[in-house]
Parts: sequence; structure tokens; C-alpha cells
Amino acid sequence: MNNLNFEALYLGPQSENRKYFKELLNFLVDEHIHWRRNFHPDDVPCITLTDQRREDFADTMQRMQDVLHKLSAKLKTSSWPAHSPRYAGHMISDVLMPALLAYMSAMMYNPNNVAYEASPPTTALELEAGRDLCRMMGFEPEKSFGHITSGGHVANYEAIWVARNLKSIPSAIKEAFPEHPRTKNLSEYELLNLSPSTTLDLLDSVDQDDWNAVRACSIRGKGLGGFDPGKIIIPQSAHYSWAKAVDVLGLGQQALVPIGVTGNYRMDIGHLRRELEDLAARKIPVLAVVGVAGSTEEGAVDEIHKIVALRPEFESSHGMSFSIHVDAAYGGYARSVFLDEEVGFLPWKDLKRTLHTERIIAESVEWPDQDVYDAFKALAEVDSVTIDPHKMGYVPYQAGAVAFKDERVRNVTAYFPPYLFAGEGEEAPSAPPLLGSFILEGSKAGAAAAAVWAAHRTVGLNVTGYGRIIGESIEGAHRFHEKLCRQNKFVGGEFEVVPLAKPDLNIVVYGFNRVGNTSLKEMDDLNKKVKDAMSYKPDQGAIHKYDFILSSTDLKREEAGGASSVMGYGNTPAAFISRLG
Amino acid sequence: MNNLNFEALYLGPQSENRKYFKELLNFLVDEHIHWRRNFHPDDVPCITLTDQRREDFADTMQRMQDVLHKLSAKLKTSSWPAHSPRYAGHMISDVLMPALLAYMSAMMYNPNNVAYEASPPTTALELEAGRDLCRMMGFEPEKSFGHITSGGHVANYEAIWVARNLKSIPSAIKEAFPEHPRTKNLSEYELLNLSPSTTLDLLDSVDQDDWNAVRACSIRGKGLGGFDPGKIIIPQSAHYSWAKAVDVLGLGQQALVPIGVTGNYRMDIGHLRRELEDLAARKIPVLAVVGVAGSTEEGAVDEIHKIVALRPEFESSHGMSFSIHVDAAYGGYARSVFLDEEVGFLPWKDLKRTLHTERIIAESVEWPDQDVYDAFKALAEVDSVTIDPHKMGYVPYQAGAVAFKDERVRNVTAYFPPYLFAGEGEEAPSAPPLLGSFILEGSKAGAAAAAVWAAHRTVGLNVTGYGRIIGESIEGAHRFHEKLCRQNKFVGGEFEVVPLAKPDLNIVVYGFNRVGNTSLKEMDDLNKKVKDAMSYKPDQGAIHKYDFILSSTDLKREEAGGASSVMGYGNTPAAFISRLG
Repeated sequence: MNNLNFEALYLGPQSENRKYFKELLNFLVDEHIHWRRNFHPDDVPCITLTDQRREDFADTMQRMQDVLHKLSAKLKTSSWPAHSPRYAGHMISDVLMPALLAYMSAMMYNPNNVAYEASPPTTALELEAGRDLCRMMGFEPEKSFGHITSGGHVANYEAIWVARNLKSIPSAIKEAFPEHPRTKNLSEYELLNLSPSTTLDLLDSVDQDDWNAVRACSIRGKGLGGFDPGKIIIPQSAHYSWAKAVDVLGLGQQALVPIGVTGNYRMDIGHLRRELEDLAARKIPVLAVVGVAGSTEEGAVDEIHKIVALRPEFESSHGMSFSIHVDAAYGGYARSVFLDEEVGFLPWKDLKRTLHTERIIAESVEWPDQDVYDAFKALAEVDSVTIDPHKMGYVPYQAGAVAFKDERVRNVTAYFPPYLFAGEGEEAPSAPPLLGSFILEGSKAGAAAAAVWAAHRTVGLNVTGYGRIIGESIEGAHRFHEKLCRQNKFVGGEFEVVPLAKPDLNIVVYGFNRVGNTSLKEMDDLNKKVKDAMSYKPDQGAIHKYDFILSSTDLKREEAGGASSVMGYGNTPAAFISRLG
Repeated sequence: MNNLNFEALYLGPQSENRKYFKELLNFLVDEHIHWRRNFHPDDVPCITLTDQRREDFADTMQRMQDVLHKLSAKLKTSSWPAHSPRYAGHMISDVLMPALLAYMSAMMYNPNNVAYEASPPTTALELEAGRDLCRMMGFEPEKSFGHITSGGHVANYEAIWVARNLKSIPSAIKEAFPEHPRTKNLSEYELLNLSPSTTLDLLDSVDQDDWNAVRACSIRGKGLGGFDPGKIIIPQSAHYSWAKAVDVLGLGQQALVPIGVTGNYRMDIGHLRRELEDLAARKIPVLAVVGVAGSTEEGAVDEIHKIVALRPEFESSHGMSFSIHVDAAYGGYARSVFLDEEVGFLPWKDLKRTLHTERIIAESVEWPDQDVYDAFKALAEVDSVTIDPHKMGYVPYQAGAVAFKDERVRNVTAYFPPYLFAGEGEEAPSAPPLLGSFILEGSKAGAAAAAVWAAHRTVGLNVTGYGRIIGESIEGAHRFHEKLCRQNKFVGGEFEVVPLAKPDLNIVVYGFNRVGNTSLKEMDDLNKKVKDAMSYKPDQGAIHKYDFILSSTDLKREEAGGASSVMGYGNTPAAFISRLG
């Protein structure tokens, strides 16, 4: 697959590939039209040519056309030109043509992936796409479980829902079966500090017919009234959806423990260690440590490998264990850059050579550093990952995803007896899966699954597939960053521009100042002016009047800071402000 | 709008309207293609004709085509022919052509309705569509708030999330501001039993700058550890998503109080009253009473008017109040049948005349009965409603929706200061809404909003719009039901078929038996055989081999019963079984 030409994968900034797009779309539409005709073609038609000549038929058709033209006009007036190189705003970009066409094609059949019965073709595609994502994360595809969600929020909710309920399983087993040999001698604190895999083994040791009794004694049955599953530790850079997650899941903001970020906006691991030690000393359990791979504002990648290493250390030194979740909604697909075509993680010594010889990233660009490499490698060791196909998977909204390292987590959430979801295809084709039984959502577009599947199959989840697309964007970001570092004066030297930090991925954050200005207020005003000139306002007419488009973020000390974080950044941005003068 | 011809609204069972569909689609695609070209048309093209002649370009294009053809083949082999009159299975049907085309059109622009900034045109359409739904429910559009969700599950979660946190607001105010005059003299039980509107008034009486302090003392801040918001009362017929809802929200199954159903599968209001009395006597608070308008299995409509009447009664007699939510995921759009073209609720004395003279439902069909009429009328009095556009709104997956009677509920969940979401368009166009700030989800397809909006604008949410489409399906269901009642013997009188109950909407449930058989097992086996013959199994080849397609449900006494309910039905199905012999 190393001959991927990504110019063939998009409609193109100037619709250069329109001929191909229209030809494929027409074919797929005709396929559907003839499929309808093909189901008992001898049935009498319901709508005749005479019907079509009726006045109210024409009136209705006219009304539909008026509505659709009006919609198209609205879309044309104010949609973001995300396909254009002139757009450097929100983390959106053009979408892959195969994903767009697959979505359109499948949508005509309107499958609902809540249950296999309502979506025979696309439930299978969702499970395949889920396995792709598990494989990309380094999970064993036969032992892990991934599926599509409506977005990153829901994926995060689901991962913590699972971790939360799992945390209560050991106590629930002890309560339901006081004589169970593996729990009866454990203290409450010990029950709360079994590792996720130990807990899943423990549940396996209970007869399947007794699982409902165990689940009834877990948080799922008893709620959070009588059980505190502990804290969720996140970096300050985490997305605001984390504040919502603990709220929705009934844990409350009190359950969130924010960890400071270092100068490159990655979670401060020293701070994390101190926090874990403090919680262990106070016998407060930790539900999960959440790392971020690709923060929403800065694209920063937390040192996942160091988080992963802390767990066995704390298990043996403090008798404390916890789930590890990574919010890689943004960065997840970037793991493909590190995968060879057999989906093996490229050794460090081979990586750069491969990136250069395959022309993924130019030799002049220094990326990745060892920490980013180690962080992506360590994703294979975490319990769950959020990955958004509608971000760096380049498929249309909406398709998030969540991948669990151990598929047995479904036993914690399942709402129907195991035989109803046994056998995903292979072993028991007569009992296909009812996804709605163990995922957070219910009805879901099979078309989204088809889009993700088609993107994966066309592009490939490795260095010469997605790696090529993402590598290009990383290279572009680094070249831009270097340019800002080298030539940071403009308009006759009157203004300067300073980047926030060296990008871990493909997001470049920078600020402007007038040379010599030392007033924070004047600088803020200037940046606001730049932002206003380059972001869309409904009262200023069509989007086509703009030359360039950016988006902005606020980095505040206290909470309710940036557009994406409700936690403040503490003093971390101070260094940046001082570099700006 | 009373000249709606619904034959013009679908592609057609035999693709009869293919000419119109393709013409409109082509136009919308060309609109998009030229929009891309129109953004700085002088920019040099990124993909040249020479690029397109490269070998790897052709290889990539070939790969994409192969993948899309394979997808199309899968879709054609096993998708449900929901467009065909021969399909009478899951609650799916053909989708509206304007919705399908609007989705396709908007998807090319790929808007994300999490924030106005990422979707200027479609966030506005979502808010319009949300107002449409509020209006359809009888809420005042200027004072209510509705939006699109990824489905009914999430809509239900969000409604209960809001009700749950709202329940803790009075205590939170007392905790944060012990001297607040309106809470300081109230007991804990009184604080837990203020009506939702009283609680929202109370929050309004707190300075906006202090809302964060109040929210921090509510469940949102403190979690459920120290606060029990009480029980959620639902009918036995409720969808299994309710069991998941209380789990996800941290309340646990223990919070669910199921109420028996009557012979027509509606919530037993006598049972509800006894349960409320019992809880009041035990001083256990009730978080919400949930009614169902269109149960998943039977299409039954609970007597919402009687639930609504119980609230003021219990407020004065027992000092007990609660939220009322209606899960009208399935039946919500059926309220359009009762609305005249000015969106007024048709008086009972005019309704049947309108239905007959407008040819919505034939005079020979006795529908609705007074209770169904009163139930739909009373939706205007409830706090929140789940409505799925992807069910009886006939738009493609996935689009659920939730509507709140009082838009101030957003103050309970909002994650950003009010000025960030002030002014939905009209009064403050420079500060457009950030939907992600107060809804449960985040990134969401603007295309889904466009589809719902286009369907609403084309069809109209009143008796001669959606009413005409839904009326037709209700009439069809009743004719079928009557036929089953009249002629229930077939195959030479050897078998009989008996309907479960007279449909409240357009779902007909029935069972088969061999005449004279009195063995429950033999009857179950027969029904299983019928089901197997008419439902798709992956090992039996293409869907086109089937003549008719049905879906089935189990009605069990105990929990984990039907495909959609995890609660059992108790003894209610016994009468049906006895009618079957």
C-alpha cells in the first residue's frame, strides 16, 4: 500500500477531483436506485407517472426544491472553507472522499447499528472498524473491543462509565457472594485497589448466571449513594468535556484532580506522582488517571509511558491501582505514523529512516522527540482510548470512537444475557451482536461506520497510509513553527509573532505583540483584533470576502479559561507572555 | 400548506422519483463544487491534470473505487428494504427525500454544531429545528429550548441529567448562601420537593455571578455521594435505555420504580398513584415521573394528562413535587396530527372533522380515543420530552432530540459564562451560542440539523404536514388490526392470529397459534418459526430472497424480557395468551 497518493483522496481545494467524485457518487446512487427496483421488481409501482403529473405533486416538489436551494445558499454563504489552505482555524480540515461517498452511499439504506437486526451490513463494518482502531492502538484485536460513538464526549463518558462500574465490582462480588475465596479476605481498600485486569479475571471466576447479581451490587445497581469510586486525575490541558463527564456520571467536579502542565503543555509527571502519593497516604482511591494525546488547544501529547510506568510502581509500593484512560480524540490516528505495514510499532532506530525514505516527513524536520515516540508506543498498555475518526481520521461528522484493551469490560455494562451478543460474526453467526446492549448510546448511524470503514480500507492505518497524510500535516506545522521562530518581525519590524511551544503534533499556537509593548492589555487587544479580522461574524456577509481564517484560544490562570478548558492553566502561560515581552 | 402530496417526498419503493432525486442531488453537489472554486478562484490549483495522470494517483483512485464498490455490494446484499410495503419489521421506514438530500448537501461542508464558530449556517438551523419541536410540543418557543442529540438514549440521559442536578439546586443555594431568604427556612424535605419551575425561579433570584458557587454545591459539583435525589418512576413498558440511563447517571437501578401496565400496555395510573403515596409516606423524594408516548414494542401512549394532573395534587396534599419527562422518542411527531396550521391544538370537537375532511384518516377508522388525544395535548405541560426525528420524523440516522419547556434549565448545566451563549441570533448576533456548553454531547453533525430542518420546512409540523404522513400510517395500522380481528383464521382454518391490543399509534403486535393448541411451548415455537422465516440471517444469502419481513418481541414476566425492555411485564400478557388459547 505504500503507493498512496493523497491527492486522489480529496475532492480538492478547487474541486480538482470533481470528475471522479461525481462519477463515483452517481454510480453509488444508481446502485441504490436499482436495488430498490430489484426487491420484487414485479410489484406494482406505488407512484405512477400520472401521480407525478398532479398539481399537488409539483407543488410539493417545488417546496422541497425551494427548501434545499435555501439550505444550499446558507451553506455557501457562511460555511468554513476548511478545504482551503487559507483556512488555519479549528481542528477541522477537508474530509476524505472515500469516507464522504461511503457515508452518502450507506445513508440511502439508512441502517441503524443499535442492533444487528436493523443493520446487517453496517454493524459488521463497525466491528471491523473498531478492530482496526484496537490494532492501531496496539491492542490484541481478538481480545479488545472498539466501536464508534457519536463523538469524543460520549467516548470519554463511556470509558469512565466502564471504569467507574468496574471499580465497584470486587466489593460487589464480596457483597453478593461473601464466601468467594478471592474476595472474602480483602479489606475495603484492597477491594478498591485491584487492577482493572485483576478485577476482570475476578468477574470471570464468577459463574455467568451470577453476573446479574454482582452487577446489582455494583454502582450499576446501587448507584453512587453508598460507594465512592475515587478521583479522576487529568492534566490542566484536558478538554472541558471532562468537567461534564464527571458531572453526567454523578461523580461531581469534586472527583476531578487537575495536574499542572509543563512548559510544553504536557502533564507534569512529577506533580502527578506527588498527587498519587498524597492520595495513597490519605487512603483515597483513584478511579482513573487520564492522559491526553493531542490536547485541544496545543496538540500536546502527555507522557503516557510515564503514566503507565507509575501504575505497577504504585501497586507494589502503595497497594494502589487505577484505570488508565487516554483521551486521544485528537491525536489517536497519529499512532499510524509509527506503524509499519504489518502494524508493528517501528523501532526507534528505524523510525526516522522510514519517515525519511518513504517521504513521510522531511529530514530537516525534527519530529518526533523521544517522549512523543514513547507516549504513542505506550498507548498499547492503557485500558481505554478515545479516538475521533471525525478529527484526524478525516471522516465527516459525526464519528468518535472508544477502544478498550480488554473486551471483557462488556460484561460490566451488558444489559442482556451473554448469548444475545455472543459471537461477532465468526463463531456464532446466528447470534449477532446487539451493540446497544453494552454501549452508552443506542440508535446510531450505520452510515458513520461505513464511512470510517471505507476510510480505513482505502488509506490504511500505518505509516504509508494515514501516516502519510498526518506526517504531511506535522511537517507543515513544524515548518510554520520554525518560520515563526526565525522571522518573527513583520510590517517593517513593527509587530512580532511568537509561538507558544514546539508542536507535538500539527497544531501551532502563537501570539502577536507590537515590538516594545509591555502592556498585557495592549497585547491582548491586538490579538483580539487579529482574531476578529480572521474569524467569521454573521453580520459581516459572505465567508468568501475573507482572505485567511484563524481561530483563537484564551489561556487563563483560573477556571473557565479557554474555549476548550474549564480548568485554568495556572502560571504556565507566564513564560510565553514574557517571551512576547 | 394543505396541498402536501407525500408521494413527492420519497425516492419511492421502486425508485419512482429517481429523476427528481438525481437532479436535485446533482445540483447540490455542483453548488458545493463551485463554492470551493469560488473561494479565491485565482489561487493556483493544488492538484493538476498532470498529477491526476500519475500512476499512484490511478492506483489510489482504483483502491477507493474497489472499497466503495465492495461497500455497495454489502449494502445491497443485506440491507433491509425499509422502503418496501413488504417490510413490516423494526420501527424504520423510508426516509424523506428532502432530509436525505439536505444531509448529503450539508455533509460536504462538514459543519460541527458543537460551536457556532465551527458551523455558522447549521447551528442556526439546529436552533430553528429545536424551536419547531418545542412549538410542536406546545411549549412557548421563546421560553423553551430544544436541540438535536445523537439519539433517544442521549436525549433521555440529558433530560434526567438536568432534572437530577435541578433537584439539588435548592439545597445548593441554601448551602452556598445560608441566608438566602427563600431557602433558609425550608427543611431538607421541602428543599427536595420544590417544583421544577419554582426551583428555576429560585435560581434566577441568585445573582448570575454566584451561579457557579451554587452549581458547585449541587450534584454537579459534589456528586451523588452526599445527596440522594430520589426515585425515577417509569412504566414497565419503558425502553431498556432507562435502565442504562440511571446507571450512567450514577443513580443506579435502585432508583428505578417500575409501574405496571394496563391491558392496553399503558402505564397503570392507579398503580402510579399508590406508589407516589407510598413514597410520600416514607419521605422518599421522587426525581421524576417518566411517561412514554409510543412504547417501543407496542406503540402504547401513556395517559400523560393524568400524570400531569397528579403533580399539583401531590404538591398540595403531600408537599411532594417532581419533574415530568416524556419519552416520546417514537411518538413525538404524532402530536402534529392534532395541530392546525397555526400550530394550535385542535379542539376535540373539531379534530375528527378535520381528520376526515382533510383526508388524514378515514372516517371508518376510530382514532384517536379520548385518552390518546388528552395525552398528546398534555405534553405541553411536561418539563421535557424526548423526540426522535430519525423515527417518525422520517430523517436518516442519526438525529434524536430533546425539548425542555423552560429554557432556563441551561443555567443548571452551562459550563461557560452566560455571555458566551447569550443571544441565539436575534438580539446579540456577535455572541452566538456554544451548544457544547450546556448539552450532554460535544461535536455533532451540522448535517443532521440541516436534515431535520429541511424535513420540517418541506413537510410542516401540523395536521396537513407530518399529520398527513403519520395519519396514513395510523390508518394503515388500524385497518390491519381490524382485519386481524375479523379474519383471524388462515391456511384452511388451521392457524389463527391474534393482535395484542388496539394500537394507540401505528404499531401492530400479534401472535400466531395452531387452532386448538393449548401448549404455551408449542405456541412459542410456532411464533419463533414465523419470525425465523421472516427475519434476516447472515448465513442465508441475499435479502432479496425474502418475500415479507417482520420483527418480533418477547414479553416476559420477569426482567431482561423483550428486545427493548429489561423490565418484565408481570402478568399483563396473560390475557393475550389466554385469547390465543
